[in-house]
Amino acid sequence: MLEAPVIALDVMGGDGGAKQMIEGAAIARARYPKLRFRLFGDHAAMATELASAPALEAVSELVHTTSVVLATDKPSHALRRGRNSSMGLAIAAVKVGDADVAVSAGNTGALMAMAKLTLRTQGGIDRPALAALLPTGRADSVVLDLGANVECSAENLVQFAVMGAALARIALGIANPRVALLNIGEEDVKGTEELREAAAILRAADLPMRFEGFIEGDKLVRGDVDVIVSDGFTGNVALKTAEGTARLVVELLGQAFRSSWMSKLGFLLARPALRSLRQHVDPNNHNGAVFLGLNGLVVKSHGGATPKGVANAIGVAHDLAVDGIGAKIARDLSAIRARAAAAVVAALPVAITVPMTSADAA
Amino acid sequence: MLEAPVIALDVMGGDGGAKQMIEGAAIARARYPKLRFRLFGDHAAMATELASAPALEAVSELVHTTSVVLATDKPSHALRRGRNSSMGLAIAAVKVGDADVAVSAGNTGALMAMAKLTLRTQGGIDRPALAALLPTGRADSVVLDLGANVECSAENLVQFAVMGAALARIALGIANPRVALLNIGEEDVKGTEELREAAAILRAADLPMRFEGFIEGDKLVRGDVDVIVSDGFTGNVALKTAEGTARLVVELLGQAFRSSWMSKLGFLLARPALRSLRQHVDPNNHNGAVFLGLNGLVVKSHGGATPKGVANAIGVAHDLAVDGIGAKIARDLSAIRARAAAAVVAALPVAITVPMTSADAA
Repeated sequence: MLEAPVIALDVMGGDGGAKQMIEGAAIARARYPKLRFRLFGDHAAMATELASAPALEAVSELVHTTSVVLATDKPSHALRRGRNSSMGLAIAAVKVGDADVAVSAGNTGALMAMAKLTLRTQGGIDRPALAALLPTGRADSVVLDLGANVECSAENLVQFAVMGAALARIALGIANPRVALLNIGEEDVKGTEELREAAAILRAADLPMRFEGFIEGDKLVRGDVDVIVSDGFTGNVALKTAEGTARLVVELLGQAFRSSWMSKLGFLLARPALRSLRQHVDPNNHNGAVFLGLNGLVVKSHGGATPKGVANAIGVAHDLAVDGIGAKIARDLSAIRARAAAAVVAALPVAITVPMTSADAA
Repeated sequence: MLEAPVIALDVMGGDGGAKQMIEGAAIARARYPKLRFRLFGDHAAMATELASAPALEAVSELVHTTSVVLATDKPSHALRRGRNSSMGLAIAAVKVGDADVAVSAGNTGALMAMAKLTLRTQGGIDRPALAALLPTGRADSVVLDLGANVECSAENLVQFAVMGAALARIALGIANPRVALLNIGEEDVKGTEELREAAAILRAADLPMRFEGFIEGDKLVRGDVDVIVSDGFTGNVALKTAEGTARLVVELLGQAFRSSWMSKLGFLLARPALRSLRQHVDPNNHNGAVFLGLNGLVVKSHGGATPKGVANAIGVAHDLAVDGIGAKIARDLSAIRARAAAAVVAALPVAITVPMTSADAA
């Protein structure tokens, strides 16, 4: 249990620059009085913003950087040139132990590539995954992978399930999360070979999760499960589709309310109730995607997040650091390995070159 | 231009049985007075419903069937046992020319498998696709494939684009539809090899469509393009996620309105305006998925569609039959082939064993 985590904050990455990030950090500092910060960015810009946030300034160490990873930079460019950027140095601070978790609102592809190269994957994980919290009809659900891995093997999916369950335990406070694989049908025969293999492994494994089989897209946002596991391509499309659809329906709703004086009056009367709906679907209230499976924590904020949204992302970072998610993932992977050793699934957490079939698990 | 198309209707397939389908056919008959029907199902059940729909009865021929494909039947079971079912005979009627298009609200997997086996793919098409209309912020968009093909080659995706554009021309009345490939980013380097190859081919082809490159999930429902092309796995997840999210937001909205007497009053005042929103997202108003690429037309209605929803699916079937979508697809494929012969892309519509790279198109 880490008492006072240090956040390495990429102050230059978001669309709103130093103002957005520093204001967000100040809100997070008020929520978690033990938090400390290392702020990476242009010194003058940071100092200006910190002038109106003395409580934050008191617990912050400033590191002046002159280079920034742009939203338009390709990951390969960031890898070559970004080492001394605010983003690159924030990640490096986690690696050398100067900070417990890095938070950035910058270019996702670049952040993912630099984090992977600098921190490397933790033992038992072949590929890291990007996970986020999705608002549903009930509580939030964890969804992963969101684009770190376009194509995934059955073993990758199983590792994502373990990492997602660990995140759900910490971020959602659920001891025994319900986990499902995103598929195009609920029957065992549906989907790809990889999905069917992953389901067979998860069904046989004895982990601190309830494996619920397959889930379809229309149930994604219902909150029936706590963790939804997918390859990065489908997960990315599904999460963005859910966000885009929610935004569209809220927009159409606004148009409907503006369409006559009677509906305008109706809106005024219903406004307090509608505010909670708007808050429920506001991405700022679910901000903070997490790179899981690395030797160090990296949290990604939406580029356009409000200061409150940035504070929420820092809150996620705080919880993960305090609860030590890396150790939790390692423990669950050991459990799968132990069971694999017991001949249910052979050699699971190491790279498998011969495709396994569900018959192998019998 | 077909004047008076004949619809082969699977009367037994939907969740609501003969009542749902016959009432839907009666509404469609009133909309399109030249339509004629062959109704496949239990004779007594059909006769009972037709008693209250004399105008429909006058243009219908009844074919008594004793077997039904159940919602729970596996496609393989339907292929073995379903030949004489209401669904199987409706498809067969299209094959032998007794009807111009089959409409069923039954088991999608079974319908797809039986249609493919009975009607076979049309020349130039390697795999048929399932397409549907998605309500967006503007007009509807065509989305395909929705699950007929879990994994797709670049050539499959190109063929889907051609078929989707033909459907958009007929169902949406857009002469030169905007077409995009669903991807996890808009930059050329994003996504799978198959997507990048398909984009290169579509960019080089001279077709009656505007190819707009890649589109992300959050823009799926914005109506920025008319045709969204995807492999069947991602397309299925994306469409269902959009449907599920829209349903959830409307549900949350209902909860918000019920949460206080003031918001209830607000709802009453805004109700006429909200009705249009509800209609906009009601799947019944966008009912009628189409199997494209077969030697014969098959339209799938939602199993739980209202009679009005069934009528809309029959309306889609009517338009496709009248406009001869098969010939339109064949013509566009010839155009791609001609251009291929002109050395831009070699041998596109036939199966390609050596993966093409964008360099081949240079």
